[in-house]
Amino acid sequence: MRHIDEDTITQAVIARHTAAQDARLREVMTSLVQHLHAFAREVRLTDGEWLKGIRFLAECGRLCSDRRQEFVLLSDTLGLSMLVTALNHRKPSGCTEATTARPFHDGDAPCSDTRAETPLAGTEPLYVRGRVCALDGAPVAGAEVRIRHSEENNTLTSAADGTFQFKCPVPAPHTIPHDGPVGRMLQALGRHPWRPAHLHFMISAPGYERLVTHVFRSGSTYLDSDAVFGVRRSLEAEWVRQEPGPTPDGLTSDLPFYTLEFAFVLNTTKGDTPWMPMQ
Amino acid sequence: MRHIDEDTITQAVIARHTAAQDARLREVMTSLVQHLHAFAREVRLTDGEWLKGIRFLAECGRLCSDRRQEFVLLSDTLGLSMLVTALNHRKPSGCTEATTARPFHDGDAPCSDTRAETPLAGTEPLYVRGRVCALDGAPVAGAEVRIRHSEENNTLTSAADGTFQFKCPVPAPHTIPHDGPVGRMLQALGRHPWRPAHLHFMISAPGYERLVTHVFRSGSTYLDSDAVFGVRRSLEAEWVRQEPGPTPDGLTSDLPFYTLEFAFVLNTTKGDTPWMPMQ
Repeated sequence: MRHIDEDTITQAVIARHTAAQDARLREVMTSLVQHLHAFAREVRLTDGEWLKGIRFLAECGRLCSDRRQEFVLLSDTLGLSMLVTALNHRKPSGCTEATTARPFHDGDAPCSDTRAETPLAGTEPLYVRGRVCALDGAPVAGAEVRIRHSEENNTLTSAADGTFQFKCPVPAPHTIPHDGPVGRMLQALGRHPWRPAHLHFMISAPGYERLVTHVFRSGSTYLDSDAVFGVRRSLEAEWVRQEPGPTPDGLTSDLPFYTLEFAFVLNTTKGDTPWMPMQ
Repeated sequence: MRHIDEDTITQAVIARHTAAQDARLREVMTSLVQHLHAFAREVRLTDGEWLKGIRFLAECGRLCSDRRQEFVLLSDTLGLSMLVTALNHRKPSGCTEATTARPFHDGDAPCSDTRAETPLAGTEPLYVRGRVCALDGAPVAGAEVRIRHSEENNTLTSAADGTFQFKCPVPAPHTIPHDGPVGRMLQALGRHPWRPAHLHFMISAPGYERLVTHVFRSGSTYLDSDAVFGVRRSLEAEWVRQEPGPTPDGLTSDLPFYTLEFAFVLNTTKGDTPWMPMQ
């Protein structure tokens, strides 16, 4: 294929991959090249736009560290992360739906100011009571429950009746990191960087598909415009305001507080691949 | 759009861009999101493959500097650079065709060992005589001619008859930088990193479209498998071997040498955008 022009180049690139030993890699790259080229043709991408794109990617790369992954942000804000999650975690009706795993991707280090989703936690405490169960309602004991809220990670284990409990500051809406190229992209697109109030959960138990999900606060701002497209109706829950008095941990509060109950219904599985942190 | 799933997410992302003030940006991003999502759906991209992709991009980013641009390499080796060039520089038949501009994208610094296309220049000299002309054959005097060969850049100006001349070591096939993630990608795809022997030219003259192109050595290895898909038949030329004797610069050579003649036919234009170096 010596003479290559705008009509023949896509086939020329694909034809170059026939020697790839990994058939799946060949399949993925063939589709990638076809769509990349189709995009350039469809919009008739200019030299200057191409160059802007190259510079944008390089700037994303410069920001990446073990504290921040700008390409994950890019994938999240373009809806790719949520699409991949949806494609890979189809579940029987009744199981708790999965969402993007972003905050679990950065080696689980607590947020720092520079990389963080910016938490705006309220001062009232939220008492959470979760219950891990199977699709038939049977409790799942001994499940590992990783939680991320505001600036902390916790790991708990579900009890014999499948329950786990913890207390955290009431989460508020917060922004994804938006001081980099992805933030500028959102701004140019007329989009905000906010996420509705939520908690993150990753729940693992032998014999079940690992569940990575959120629980969103019902009625929170930004439920209709989550910057990373993570909201699913089934994951909204009422965070119930309680007057001062006895709290779920057996103590007493002089201030109002909130309670949240949520059942996490796991899907059975043939076995997950090990969890791969980002770095 | 509160409930997002694998069927609704693409439309949800696109709908979020209606507030973008720049209509062209909206157009480009709409197409980009559609093709990105179509790719993920078509191959049913797995969580692990998504993560490999994120890591690949981050690694490309880590290599980028003012000495190297791994994302340009990626674009080149996936045929995107050449496609964008072809889309933006359609010319009337008879004009010299354009190719990718890669070596002119790095601030024009001469190659260093770390970032360089690896030259394997022969020891014999090549005497090049170019001629810059319009489509009707009229010479273009005073054109700025930037040349890149082996490890050097030169800038010349065309004479009253449109000609320019220079001498350089005979270029040989060479590799693109392949010690990074793009090199590993090529290897996994069963591809080599070589380019056929060539010279680079960038020719600018008032009233004409800037021409960025190569001249390839006729018969060179890798003409059929250029790693960056830059070869066009019209850009191949005979590099004629001459026996020892008088050389085009009026001197005498005791060794054999090569001569090359090539006419660069410029397209008229309404005016180019300024050339934008990569950094």
